[in-house]
Amino acid sequence: MQIGMMGLGRMGANMVRRLMRAGHECVVYDINTASVAALVKDGASGAASMEEFIGKLAKPRCLWLMLPAAITGKVVDQAAGLMEPGDIIIDGGNSYYHDDVDRAAKLQSKGLNYVDVGTSGGVWGLDRGYCLMIGGPDGAVQHLDSIFATLAPGADAGAPAPDKAAGTAPFGYLHCGPSGAGHFVKMIHNGIEYGVMAAYAEGMNILKAGNSGKVKREADAETSPLQNPEYYQFDIDLPQVAEVWRHGSVIGSWLLDLTAGALKSDPSLANFGGRVSDSGEGRWTLKAAIDTGVPAPVLSSALFDRFSSQGESEFADKLLSAMRYAFGGHLEKPKAGS
Amino acid sequence: MQIGMMGLGRMGANMVRRLMRAGHECVVYDINTASVAALVKDGASGAASMEEFIGKLAKPRCLWLMLPAAITGKVVDQAAGLMEPGDIIIDGGNSYYHDDVDRAAKLQSKGLNYVDVGTSGGVWGLDRGYCLMIGGPDGAVQHLDSIFATLAPGADAGAPAPDKAAGTAPFGYLHCGPSGAGHFVKMIHNGIEYGVMAAYAEGMNILKAGNSGKVKREADAETSPLQNPEYYQFDIDLPQVAEVWRHGSVIGSWLLDLTAGALKSDPSLANFGGRVSDSGEGRWTLKAAIDTGVPAPVLSSALFDRFSSQGESEFADKLLSAMRYAFGGHLEKPKAGS
Amino acid sequence: MQIGMMGLGRMGANMVRRLMRAGHECVVYDINTASVAALVKDGASGAASMEEFIGKLAKPRCLWLMLPAAITGKVVDQAAGLMEPGDIIIDGGNSYYHDDVDRAAKLQSKGLNYVDVGTSGGVWGLDRGYCLMIGGPDGAVQHLDSIFATLAPGADAGAPAPDKAAGTAPFGYLHCGPSGAGHFVKMIHNGIEYGVMAAYAEGMNILKAGNSGKVKREADAETSPLQNPEYYQFDIDLPQVAEVWRHGSVIGSWLLDLTAGALKSDPSLANFGGRVSDSGEGRWTLKAAIDTGVPAPVLSSALFDRFSSQGESEFADKLLSAMRYAFGGHLEKPKAGS
Amino acid sequence: MQIGMMGLGRMGANMVRRLMRAGHECVVYDINTASVAALVKDGASGAASMEEFIGKLAKPRCLWLMLPAAITGKVVDQAAGLMEPGDIIIDGGNSYYHDDVDRAAKLQSKGLNYVDVGTSGGVWGLDRGYCLMIGGPDGAVQHLDSIFATLAPGADAGAPAPDKAAGTAPFGYLHCGPSGAGHFVKMIHNGIEYGVMAAYAEGMNILKAGNSGKVKREADAETSPLQNPEYYQFDIDLPQVAEVWRHGSVIGSWLLDLTAGALKSDPSLANFGGRVSDSGEGRWTLKAAIDTGVPAPVLSSALFDRFSSQGESEFADKLLSAMRYAFGGHLEKPKAGS
Repeated sequence: MQIGMMGLGRMGANMVRRLMRAGHECVVYDINTASVAALVKDGASGAASMEEFIGKLAKPRCLWLMLPAAITGKVVDQAAGLMEPGDIIIDGGNSYYHDDVDRAAKLQSKGLNYVDVGTSGGVWGLDRGYCLMIGGPDGAVQHLDSIFATLAPGADAGAPAPDKAAGTAPFGYLHCGPSGAGHFVKMIHNGIEYGVMAAYAEGMNILKAGNSGKVKREADAETSPLQNPEYYQFDIDLPQVAEVWRHGSVIGSWLLDLTAGALKSDPSLANFGGRVSDSGEGRWTLKAAIDTGVPAPVLSSALFDRFSSQGESEFADKLLSAMRYAFGGHLEKPKAGS
Repeated sequence: MQIGMMGLGRMGANMVRRLMRAGHECVVYDINTASVAALVKDGASGAASMEEFIGKLAKPRCLWLMLPAAITGKVVDQAAGLMEPGDIIIDGGNSYYHDDVDRAAKLQSKGLNYVDVGTSGGVWGLDRGYCLMIGGPDGAVQHLDSIFATLAPGADAGAPAPDKAAGTAPFGYLHCGPSGAGHFVKMIHNGIEYGVMAAYAEGMNILKAGNSGKVKREADAETSPLQNPEYYQFDIDLPQVAEVWRHGSVIGSWLLDLTAGALKSDPSLANFGGRVSDSGEGRWTLKAAIDTGVPAPVLSSALFDRFSSQGESEFADKLLSAMRYAFGGHLEKPKAGS
Repeated sequence: MQIGMMGLGRMGANMVRRLMRAGHECVVYDINTASVAALVKDGASGAASMEEFIGKLAKPRCLWLMLPAAITGKVVDQAAGLMEPGDIIIDGGNSYYHDDVDRAAKLQSKGLNYVDVGTSGGVWGLDRGYCLMIGGPDGAVQHLDSIFATLAPGADAGAPAPDKAAGTAPFGYLHCGPSGAGHFVKMIHNGIEYGVMAAYAEGMNILKAGNSGKVKREADAETSPLQNPEYYQFDIDLPQVAEVWRHGSVIGSWLLDLTAGALKSDPSLANFGGRVSDSGEGRWTLKAAIDTGVPAPVLSSALFDRFSSQGESEFADKLLSAMRYAFGGHLEKPKAGS
Repeated sequence: MQIGMMGLGRMGANMVRRLMRAGHECVVYDINTASVAALVKDGASGAASMEEFIGKLAKPRCLWLMLPAAITGKVVDQAAGLMEPGDIIIDGGNSYYHDDVDRAAKLQSKGLNYVDVGTSGGVWGLDRGYCLMIGGPDGAVQHLDSIFATLAPGADAGAPAPDKAAGTAPFGYLHCGPSGAGHFVKMIHNGIEYGVMAAYAEGMNILKAGNSGKVKREADAETSPLQNPEYYQFDIDLPQVAEVWRHGSVIGSWLLDLTAGALKSDPSLANFGGRVSDSGEGRWTLKAAIDTGVPAPVLSSALFDRFSSQGESEFADKLLSAMRYAFGGHLEKPKAGS
């Protein structure tokens, strides 16, 4: 079927390619004309303006936006002004689901359908397929089924095909509920992702410290001594451990696969400095936990470690040192690396 | 090759079966004679006493213990008294790696080899293979290679066979270091497991609260109101969400596979009460983190939630209510379910 | 000076009493006429309706609201309709500071002043004085100075009087910034309060477990054994420990004073069940931390423990037990008390 | 009464001074002869060797050690060799209570008494008095009562004297139980201290971020945007807020007094870099919590933040960035300050 894609960054462009490979007709638009040209070369129909773009779409128009969350709202408004009742706007970016709920209500009053699609799969999605979490009105979601089926990974290779009548989840896409539900589920997916990642990272960090007993520690009143150095004499080969855990252990996962790959290519991870970004969903997951009174100590610990890696503990830590000086005359040791 | 297995519970018996399927010769012993008889029927050679058991083993004797951690030490001492220099004792149970380090030193003075094997794979290991994390002297570990190769999952089906010269990790077993290193790595594996499990559990709990805005809340000074009920109107189908995440998402894992299975068979998990046991390794992982000064906020949060599920927050919580009453006259609301 | 007080619950009524003791003239109103009558008996001027109430106030009218946060907004609107440019509305309740910011903007357009006052001191404030954190326009805050000075504790008894020119903080009240700043500071005050309370509660809970080594533990695969019972043979007298810490230790505090009092009156805290309420500010503090990217692992842990005490971990914990059953065949132990 | 003090660092020397002021007779010894000389000038009786030191003590000898934990054990052994049944060794340093339990058993077999005294009060103890948490045999502890009473703060000035028959806690010292109990209670005191300190530090850090909405944020995919900058427009005066909280608020404490002092002398805390040491007791508290299965999420979060401030999150954070790069192609932003 035909679909219009606006926002041709890495994610958007790859989705267009995956759709065209399966025979879908793609109309594409981006303010970056080179991005448009590249896909036109691959068989897409390009547009040079929003008006031309929407004009090329057959009714009911299906317009998929793959934009930075910060500008999605403005573009939705602009596009909506050029569309007609029955048309569908799909937001496949990383919008906050609150915005989806508000936007859908506004568009519904004009007869437009709003579908939000949380998309997981990262740079691997082109070949591996994208896991799609979808929110929106039944009719519109159903209308887009073949698009979703193509973007998603599909049934597991080699296994008997699941019964689609029992739901599309085994094919890698799911209609989660009304508008907002897709990004709501994707938000929590990312919150979990932070927690799972941190579990591996903390564990690997402890493994790495398995040889602490070999290291000469400073002996001063500000350094807590290691009581039993004889139990910390292990030089653990982290890349090999990550690899062995991939085979038959309880903690096998795709993130572990990636971890093993990263450690294999450089066990010291020297290309990284340790400043870990966070991109919104982890924060929103925590806010949802707080709003609803659900304990989330693991997910919050993972988020706060990222904040801390960004340098945001500094003032609190200075204050702790200041208190220690005030009650005990403890002089601070210099920061590592300074 | 020949191996003696003592401790024929679920794990030990299944390992014997997996070894015999591959042609290894197994001598078996357990104080429960029925367990011995069952495996003899399947082709093992049985023993009725420790003496008979060890007498049946060819030199160098390879004795694998699959016992509760609490009795392993005593049995090691007893067996060691019947063995000779060059023999090998393998502890495949869940011993604390400190005990391995101590035991290995003691046995080494008698010329005996001690090999500790952390084993992951649970009830699935018989067919899926066990991920093995191994500590011990090079010679002894090498001597047991064909046993490890059989117990482990082996190379991934369908993929090109990895180069064994580059290490055995891709086959699912790894010599991690000297005695104790196997259980050290397994310990941290379980610490990570707690964190990963908790990440999914917390996320699912927040998803479940997606419909909080539909629920009538008590309006009293002791209940924090939900500020924006319009954003919590989602009835999320948890089994379907767990299923869709298995296909192409960043958080796909074996634990997620099991989660999806558990939710599918009963979305309400009515067979469970929510008292989560912990079995030692999670605690020891945290102690290692503390000894070595490595931050582990996620792993500790996961562990402490289990303690809390066991009722161990109660006194602390009573004290919090007592403080609230003391400064603000706040009367406690009754516990849910009481 | 004259002030009108609406909302004569425990807090509001006690504030009126403290103000009248110092010679201020109080006009009072509440929908509960008995509350009005009680204060009239003590010397206040009562009102039977909002109109009468506001009619009794001299210009510029100073109207202090001491209401549940849920109804404050509506009452502000209603009162504002009866007031004139230059008048002052003071919200001394527990409003979310976002509401203050919004409300102040709205009232400012009508020439009305909005002052938000975060009030700490609980049931002890009548005699001890209230710590006041104030937000609002300079002129209005200055106009109310004598009211604030009366409600606050004032300079420490026995110490040389601080120089008021250097600020009012040593007297127990502070103009923190524009409208909203008062409740913003009070919100974080409460966030800290949760953390401090939890620190004591956790510590006391560990102290209480000092005799764990004397207790016979269940010996089963689902119970982690205590490795060194000889180190847990202490029957600590918690009320005495809380008391001794009040004298010269680093952790002396008012909350510790209250803790010691509560433990002294009943060391087993049998009147409490352990369901700890949270009242909004702790949640909002965390949201502010998340918005601004500031790590708050201690404050969030304290909040999530309260959620957990309210039963909100249950589904997550059931899921953990379900996973353990799925990979390891672990059967759940029954919940304590069930 | 007479007491021997060995270890004349800041703590030991000040304790001798406080004891002599009250008329006690002090024999002092240190390998640093200048420290001995300084106290001899003030009236103490000095010694030049362990033998001379112990020889000067009247029976039953009372020998108080105020030494770094790392050397206490060796000195106890040495002193014990020179002492006789009925004599008393007091460890007033920061020993691990496990060592106390072991040492007391060993000394008891020689008829010697071992008393462990956890001491809080820091550099303020000379004038303010020390809070003493005492473990050891009844007779020995009773024998030392007048020493403890002098070192402790004593009854609150201005208040009616408490009844000593009801216990010594109101005077600032407490016999907590058998040997080890003193340091056990002190250990948990410090664990709580970490939590309380962190609660203030986190809260102050959030307060400081009250003006985040005024700051221009980088707009890139790796920076989470601030959704409602209008609610973060507050320039909070931290020293004043710390000061006002000291007067009548729920969170007043001695640590808050010190915090207010530190912020007053330099609101930017420019003399501190934010590397927060930890000194053993916080770690041991967590180990006790883990051993006994008591949840301690707040105390552990406080401890792990200190580890993190020491640079120990670095490898874990690098691994998180490596994973983000692997699944999403996310490029790391540079570390602040690098």
